[in-house]
Amino acid sequence: MKTMQIVGYKSSGKTTLTTRLIELLSARSVRVASLKHHGHGGVPLGLEETDSEKHRQAGALIAGVEGAGVLQLSNHHAWRMEQMVAIYKLLHIEVLMMEGFKTYDYDKIVLIRDNEDLHLLEQLTHIKAVITPLNLNQSSYPFPIFKREEIEAFNNWFISFLKL
Amino acid sequence: MKTMQIVGYKSSGKTTLTTRLIELLSARSVRVASLKHHGHGGVPLGLEETDSEKHRQAGALIAGVEGAGVLQLSNHHAWRMEQMVAIYKLLHIEVLMMEGFKTYDYDKIVLIRDNEDLHLLEQLTHIKAVITPLNLNQSSYPFPIFKREEIEAFNNWFISFLKL
Repeated sequence: MKTMQIVGYKSSGKTTLTTRLIELLSARSVRVASLKHHGHGGVPLGLEETDSEKHRQAGALIAGVEGAGVLQLSNHHAWRMEQMVAIYKLLHIEVLMMEGFKTYDYDKIVLIRDNEDLHLLEQLTHIKAVITPLNLNQSSYPFPIFKREEIEAFNNWFISFLKL
Repeated sequence: MKTMQIVGYKSSGKTTLTTRLIELLSARSVRVASLKHHGHGGVPLGLEETDSEKHRQAGALIAGVEGAGVLQLSNHHAWRMEQMVAIYKLLHIEVLMMEGFKTYDYDKIVLIRDNEDLHLLEQLTHIKAVITPLNLNQSSYPFPIFKREEIEAFNNWFISFLKL
């Protein structure tokens, strides 16, 4: 399974790009999936007071509830990225698009909004491409830099990078 | 991984029993987990309008969102039981307690409320024990029959059945 992270600060266009790349892969019949971090804190999805919450409190390491195509798994501990990635592999996913989780060491596309975001290019690992409105000097960076409007060039790079 | 289904009609005490058995196993340091069907139809858990729903509509076979120990996986198709069971196995669960899903062929504890529920004992497969307030003739059935108040006897049977 191949993985690609789409990272950047809030309102940098992560969801728009991730959605577009999922569409691109899906149109090529690639088995694509996504994973996103819910950053708002607390139990995110209406799970409190449900029966599966009773199971969790009774000591279930994983309390799951399934319905209408959704499987919600409450972990007694925090989810580890390796566990989540292993689940996607198990489901025979070919490309996992991860939106966010920027401190992890998977291949990354970084969205840079302005000069204040540039430090990400120093801090993050495994950067494989950057999309930005800034006029960065390509020769200063070991990864390709795209403008937002260079959609076709970026898509071509992406498909080629994934060897699809 | 061992699996046990707790099945019966609404208000037969499935959640109470499942929760009690999870506590029993957890107290013995067994790696126990649970899975429950959400029977209310529709997207159960507030997923609509979220970013992961955009991913799903873009063609992601699995759109996942993680936060606060919860991993919510939206499947483009219906979840198959084998897929879900495989996920629990992957997470090194020793005993999976399944609440509901009574048409599946895993080992089952059946909760019988009254005479109207008795047909379940003919219809369901893999029945390993029954709990009921009815005075059933034990010798007519190939599985043990417990009263609700026979908690210790039932617990002993359960632990022994699971070979724990």
